[in-house]
Amino acid sequence: MRPMLVCAAYSLYKTDVSRVIPIAAAVEAFHNFTLMHDDIMDQAPLRRGKATVHEKWNVNTAILSGDVMLVRVYDQLLHIPINQLTEVLPLFNRTAAEVCEGQQWDMEFETKARVSEPQYLEMIRLKTAVLLGFSLELGALLADAPEDDRKALYDFGINMGIGFQLKDDLLDVFADQKKFGKQVGGDIIANKKTYLLIKALALAKGKPKAELQKWLAAKKFDKRKKVKAVTGIYESLGIRELTQAKIDSYFTQAFASLNALSVKADALKAYADEVSARQK
Amino acid sequence: MRPMLVCAAYSLYKTDVSRVIPIAAAVEAFHNFTLMHDDIMDQAPLRRGKATVHEKWNVNTAILSGDVMLVRVYDQLLHIPINQLTEVLPLFNRTAAEVCEGQQWDMEFETKARVSEPQYLEMIRLKTAVLLGFSLELGALLADAPEDDRKALYDFGINMGIGFQLKDDLLDVFADQKKFGKQVGGDIIANKKTYLLIKALALAKGKPKAELQKWLAAKKFDKRKKVKAVTGIYESLGIRELTQAKIDSYFTQAFASLNALSVKADALKAYADEVSARQK
Repeated sequence: MRPMLVCAAYSLYKTDVSRVIPIAAAVEAFHNFTLMHDDIMDQAPLRRGKATVHEKWNVNTAILSGDVMLVRVYDQLLHIPINQLTEVLPLFNRTAAEVCEGQQWDMEFETKARVSEPQYLEMIRLKTAVLLGFSLELGALLADAPEDDRKALYDFGINMGIGFQLKDDLLDVFADQKKFGKQVGGDIIANKKTYLLIKALALAKGKPKAELQKWLAAKKFDKRKKVKAVTGIYESLGIRELTQAKIDSYFTQAFASLNALSVKADALKAYADEVSARQK
Repeated sequence: MRPMLVCAAYSLYKTDVSRVIPIAAAVEAFHNFTLMHDDIMDQAPLRRGKATVHEKWNVNTAILSGDVMLVRVYDQLLHIPINQLTEVLPLFNRTAAEVCEGQQWDMEFETKARVSEPQYLEMIRLKTAVLLGFSLELGALLADAPEDDRKALYDFGINMGIGFQLKDDLLDVFADQKKFGKQVGGDIIANKKTYLLIKALALAKGKPKAELQKWLAAKKFDKRKKVKAVTGIYESLGIRELTQAKIDSYFTQAFASLNALSVKADALKAYADEVSARQK
């Protein structure tokens, strides 16, 4: 997704896209560096159906491999012409630090009793959206796009990224199991602090609130029963519609940014349409 | 040590040293990033007398803090004027990757049955010496020093760095306990594959060899007895003198590099003298 966004933004202004592929690859390598270290932190056994680095080798090797991968990312960014490099590096550094910060928040939320909606939205902005925004701005910058377009493409990426993540949260509960790749309800089983749970905890009162707390506190439970019960509480509180409205508002803003561009961006619009309509 | 080397090399050619201090600080920050991740890998509880980051907080926080610290290093390097930056970044990236590789070798040596002398020397070159060489070359590069001087200062750092590390190994066994900060014999107790042990394993035959193997295999032992016995084996094999000769040869080469410079380098000579003569 990220290298594709670099290339797509670049090709809004220039045709020689092959020139930016090594740079787009650097962004993907950075994303994979974060996944390698995140997988250690999450003790994830699998990534893309294969054993994670810390599982196949060991944690120390995964730490060091990630470190050297980040160094290689900077090496790869040296493909950028010098006059643009001095603009790109501060943007990339800011983005990279923000992604780390987002991961730190995500981990801290796991043990935090209460996470507010703005805190959650800020966490997903940092952890997921800023790298999408950066990818788009990078493509525009490499193509010498106007400053306003660069900014609009960054905003498009931020809003699409947050919308994308909220859709993830929604699908995890309300996807059609036949179309969905993962187990529907996985987040509910794991008590994951998603947008839906945060919203439900903020809105629930009386009996639904007590029931929700009961399921969150339960140590032993029937997984199917928990998923069914919590999904029912979400439905009764209107969480599904509220989340969908929030997603829509982010995509509306994303499309507005595309419309503000000095060029036509039909391919990016079609892509954002797909992302917004996805069922899995 | 590293920021001091940047400044010392710079001041061989220019007087406005304060200008390079932010850049020298970046090198020190990089070194501290490696320490933070190394401490996780070594499960070290203390660093400079204080709790390590993974001890005070947790492993995940230490991984992420290190990651963001490395990003900040690159941010700090942006203090370098653009015409020099394009020269510095590839050198820094190469050095950073080498330091990671050195740490990987060091870890793999722990469980490796046999480590050869060249392998060990290459490991300490990567893990320790290249960053000293880079620090010196960086100072020279920032001062627009002649290419040959840059190269000579890098070589000086490499040779001093390897000599420094070998001296570490020697002092750990043969230091005067009254002057030495740590426990003399710590490496022997831990079966650490130092230059002395590698050399002893290569040279020992017959009875001393059997005795050395016995101590290496021992699970329960009197620490003082083990230190005394292994030190005795080292003495009988002439390891002390062999190691000292190796150290001397590295420092001889280091001084030769300084003498080849186009400028006088009395301060660096005095510093290398101190490093070579240190008793702790």
